[in-house]
Parts: sequence; C-alpha cells; structure tokens
Amino acid sequence: MKYLHTMVRVTNLEQSVDFYCNKLGLVEVDRSEVPQGRYTLVFLAPPGQTDIQVELTYNWDPEAYTGGRNFGHLAYEVDDIYAACQRLKDKGVVINRPPRDGRMAFVRSPDNISIELLQKGTPLAPAEPWSSMPNTGVW
Amino acid sequence: MKYLHTMVRVTNLEQSVDFYCNKLGLVEVDRSEVPQGRYTLVFLAPPGQTDIQVELTYNWDPEAYTGGRNFGHLAYEVDDIYAACQRLKDKGVVINRPPRDGRMAFVRSPDNISIELLQKGTPLAPAEPWSSMPNTGVW
Repeated sequence: MKYLHTMVRVTNLEQSVDFYCNKLGLVEVDRSEVPQGRYTLVFLAPPGQTDIQVELTYNWDPEAYTGGRNFGHLAYEVDDIYAACQRLKDKGVVINRPPRDGRMAFVRSPDNISIELLQKGTPLAPAEPWSSMPNTGVW
Repeated sequence: MKYLHTMVRVTNLEQSVDFYCNKLGLVEVDRSEVPQGRYTLVFLAPPGQTDIQVELTYNWDPEAYTGGRNFGHLAYEVDDIYAACQRLKDKGVVINRPPRDGRMAFVRSPDNISIELLQKGTPLAPAEPWSSMPNTGVW
C-alpha cells in the first residue's frame, strides 16, 4: 500500500490555496472541478515530493468546518525554520507556536488545520525575534 | 520542504496499533514513550514507504477525541481493494463505504479517523459481496 494524501475541507478555495502555496510553500499539482457534484478538488504537495499530497476539498455549497481533537496536525520538515516562519509572518500568518527552540513551530490554515514545521537536522541556535515570542492561541 | 506525517490522537494505543497495523496494513517504524509529558508517540507507515508516516499520539491522561469536518481523511492506494477490504472485514472492521465500483472504499479508525482506500491503476471489475453491499454510517 502507498500513502496518497490527507484530505481537508476548505471554506474558501482561493484563500486556502494562497495559504498552502504562497505562504506555506506547497505547490499545486492537480485540480479538478466537478460541477455535477458541486465541488472542486485541489491537490498540493511539497516541491520535489509531488506524489505526497494534501487534497483540498471545496464544496460549492457553503458549510462551516469545525475542528475535532482526533485529528492533530500535518507536519513538514523545512530547511530553515526561521526563514519559513518569517515568510509566513510577513504574509500575515500568526505563528501560534514560535520556534523558540530553533526546532519546532505551529501555524494554522484558514480552516484551523494545525500545521507543524520542523527544522531539518540539528536545531538552529536560538535567535530573536523567535526566542522571546510568546505563544498565540492554540494549535 | 518535505512531508513528514499526519498526526492523530488515539484513546487506546493498543487498539489503534492493531487497527492501523494488523488490519489496515501499516507498519510501526518508531515509538517513543515520554513519561515526563505523560504521552507515547507511535509512528506508522506503509511498508516500503517508511518516511511517509502517521503519528499516533497517545496521551496517558484520558480524553475524549471528537471529530471535526475540517479534516477529511487519510488516503492510501492498495494493490487489490477487494483483498484489503476482505482483510479488514474478516478482522471486524466495518466497511462504511464498500468498493462497489472496484475503486474506492472508506473505513474508520477506532477514533473515527476516516481512511480512504483507492485501487491502484484501473478499477477492478465489480464483484460480490461488494457490489451489492450498502453503505454503513458516515465516513
């Protein structure tokens, strides 16, 4: 068996693609609009790992998507956790759990899917503004 | 960036490892008990794809884990969707959405995480008992 994707539902497709691609750094690898089912599917993946996907399901008929505790988060390794968090922060994303330890951070998608970022290899040396940045909300 | 895992919380670790490994077919690739945090982490993956993981978080202090609609499901491709569903069924797992089309099935983990199974390549020819099996519950 082979892992294909983790599917999440999104209330605003444009906003979610902006978050996952322009802010987080995934790329769009496939998209299908299904008018008869009134939904659009968008498949996203890390660059260079295009068969390990997040599937965004956008139902055309509005629905409020609440979260639950049985699902925890999606986790990605990044080459430079400070650069990744700076890019997210510069684009308006709240860093819910800043990488004070140079190793781990959490943010949330527009529909409150928790995303964990982990520094590749050895943690980076603690550095401002991260090392003194408090947590914001839950993740 | 590189995908690492999807984390889910589990209320009963033994039952969940039994589901994901013995029934679904993942393998355990790592486990760490953290007494100071009162939790255990278990990392599971498809055989041969051991760096694409599901992280089970088992908090030692009991908590009820409800689901939410923002998370949809985990999806895996299988070589023979009938064989996969038969193995799950024989081991007592409800096939919520049977593979009537020889292509797609859904089951749920003990904590109601929805799992999609998709037939690799061309859908199989419709076959009993699957083609006339009704849906059960939601997924």
